[in-house]
Amino acid sequence: MRLPMNGAVERLRLSGIRHFTALARETPGCVLLTLGEPEFDTPEPVKEQVLLSLSRNETHYPPNNGQPYLLEALSAAAAKRGLHYRPEEIIVTCGATEALFSALTALLNPGDEVIIPTPAFGLYESITCLCRGNYVPLDVSGSHFQITGPALSKAVTARTKAIVLTSPNNPTGCVYTSETLALVAEIAKQTGIYVICDEVYRQLAYVDRELSFAVLHPALREQTIVVDSFSKPYAMTGWRLGWLMADEPVKAQIQKVHQYAVSCAAAFTQRACVVALSEDISEMRERYRRRRDLVYGRLVEMGMEVAKPEGAFYIFPSIQQYGLDSETFCTRLIRESGLGLVPGVCFGAEGYVRLSYCYSEAELREGLDRLERFLKTLRPLK
Amino acid sequence: MRLPMNGAVERLRLSGIRHFTALARETPGCVLLTLGEPEFDTPEPVKEQVLLSLSRNETHYPPNNGQPYLLEALSAAAAKRGLHYRPEEIIVTCGATEALFSALTALLNPGDEVIIPTPAFGLYESITCLCRGNYVPLDVSGSHFQITGPALSKAVTARTKAIVLTSPNNPTGCVYTSETLALVAEIAKQTGIYVICDEVYRQLAYVDRELSFAVLHPALREQTIVVDSFSKPYAMTGWRLGWLMADEPVKAQIQKVHQYAVSCAAAFTQRACVVALSEDISEMRERYRRRRDLVYGRLVEMGMEVAKPEGAFYIFPSIQQYGLDSETFCTRLIRESGLGLVPGVCFGAEGYVRLSYCYSEAELREGLDRLERFLKTLRPLK
Repeated sequence: MRLPMNGAVERLRLSGIRHFTALARETPGCVLLTLGEPEFDTPEPVKEQVLLSLSRNETHYPPNNGQPYLLEALSAAAAKRGLHYRPEEIIVTCGATEALFSALTALLNPGDEVIIPTPAFGLYESITCLCRGNYVPLDVSGSHFQITGPALSKAVTARTKAIVLTSPNNPTGCVYTSETLALVAEIAKQTGIYVICDEVYRQLAYVDRELSFAVLHPALREQTIVVDSFSKPYAMTGWRLGWLMADEPVKAQIQKVHQYAVSCAAAFTQRACVVALSEDISEMRERYRRRRDLVYGRLVEMGMEVAKPEGAFYIFPSIQQYGLDSETFCTRLIRESGLGLVPGVCFGAEGYVRLSYCYSEAELREGLDRLERFLKTLRPLK
Repeated sequence: MRLPMNGAVERLRLSGIRHFTALARETPGCVLLTLGEPEFDTPEPVKEQVLLSLSRNETHYPPNNGQPYLLEALSAAAAKRGLHYRPEEIIVTCGATEALFSALTALLNPGDEVIIPTPAFGLYESITCLCRGNYVPLDVSGSHFQITGPALSKAVTARTKAIVLTSPNNPTGCVYTSETLALVAEIAKQTGIYVICDEVYRQLAYVDRELSFAVLHPALREQTIVVDSFSKPYAMTGWRLGWLMADEPVKAQIQKVHQYAVSCAAAFTQRACVVALSEDISEMRERYRRRRDLVYGRLVEMGMEVAKPEGAFYIFPSIQQYGLDSETFCTRLIRESGLGLVPGVCFGAEGYVRLSYCYSEAELREGLDRLERFLKTLRPLK
């Protein structure tokens, strides 16, 4: 008889996104709009660098925090947008997932609270629970997905250690306003809590205003941790490469978790990252913006209540008028109309569904037609 | 003012191996025998698979636990040596580091004890502390680096959750005898503790006997976790690819940590791993064996007390007769004679130094000459 394992791990559930994706895949002919992965392939110039690195036998251990040339390129790229981190304040990570994991693990003592504006990507809650921290959802679904002062004040306690800001947001596509960011800055200044800025969709924003908390509030530098990734802007999800930037003493603690959890990112993919940073992604962004317009327009035509996304490649319409919980809605949508979406409850928000528009326009049009037919079979409550 | 971070992380120190490597690198003309990294480059057929995968645009998310073809290849390779794990009982990890991290994190509740036969690689202690577990060193330096029954019984308490077996061992090169493994099996059977088998040097053993705890004690399958890596046998350290195998219910918990810490290993390197598994490494092993013989012979000639390693590419001579602590010995050795070794204290064992022989024979001969000259400047205590 084996002993029981870690209770915090045993209590964790696996991602609901995967469950609904699997259900859709098992259904013959089903259209999937469930995943948050660019359909594009990684650009050729980026892939070519891997061949160069392999031919040079860059197959040996790299430095724990990343190759110096990549850290310098990341530092220079950040400086161009007004964010000043020295190369030694940057860690190259195994994707933004590892960056978030290492950052939260380096911050949380058991019982510490992490405020997550919700709806939110489930990873934050899972990592917080792994750390034996307390997940504190801050419901922003009633305020156009923006944080309000009273709600934030109510969420903060003496045990609050951090807040996670994801902007542009997964699953809502919302970009925080400067007012939202100023509210967070004010609370951070008063309390000393950390602000983890998950900026993995930063380059897929369809607005011109500055959206980075770290750029707008440099006075809070010692409490700010910026997480970014090559995955979404450069179609490099399968590379597992991200990075984080933080004030040196904070980064020094995160580095320990990084070192003992994964040691380092792969050696021969780091030159490719330098090339990725110089890729012009404006055309890709434009294509996503056109898809956003297509999907948003169609959902409005169908009579759905939906906020227009300002970034990322997700849209998060309300389904409250149909009187079904989101899991039932999505299960029936797959079975009856052959379309896979993700229930809002997977993001901590009942009464919504997430549609990813990082799919081809043909798939989007077919999926939207199926959604429209499905909605006609439902009786709106009002 | 920012809040304090995770106390368990703040208390951790960084690796001493890196410190002494850096000190040696800063010293002009110094020979380094400090690192545990094959000097060989990754074999060409392995590298070529990456080009194939990239040309096929395998740049998208792979399954969390690894590509099915790799899981099947790992399962088949294990079966060939009498170890039976189904593909769904295997997780491809970001190196053995992540495998050990995910396994220990999935096991440990705060205060749980992990027994580590010492001298040992420092990672186990660091991960245990990160998990707020208690590190229990089991000193085997007085018993030819084998575990004895009385010492093991004394180390086990009601809070013991796991023991880590590293065979062949880093830093000693010791391979556990079947008697040692039987003692551990007996205790595991009585207590229900988990046995983590770190087998990263398995293929670099210079003995013919079966060395795997998991092969010898299949009855303890539900308590056994096997960790392995592509790094050492295939000269793939910079690839960051390893794997672990465990009984399904145990693997199911470890998988959650893996998923939330790193999500998955890189996509386009997994075909290369299949090719690596079919590489014949007997020539590489023979070269290490000859180096082992060279280094062991020379150390004995110099009058050092040293156990003959049976595997890996480390040797761990005693320096007790010279009356210097291991950090002083190694610092003086770098400064006075231009040779970098690692102090035993970095492995929890004062009175020893570690020499890595995964270096060219020319470097080894030069390093050994320098060591010999240095020893002549010391006055043995007896």
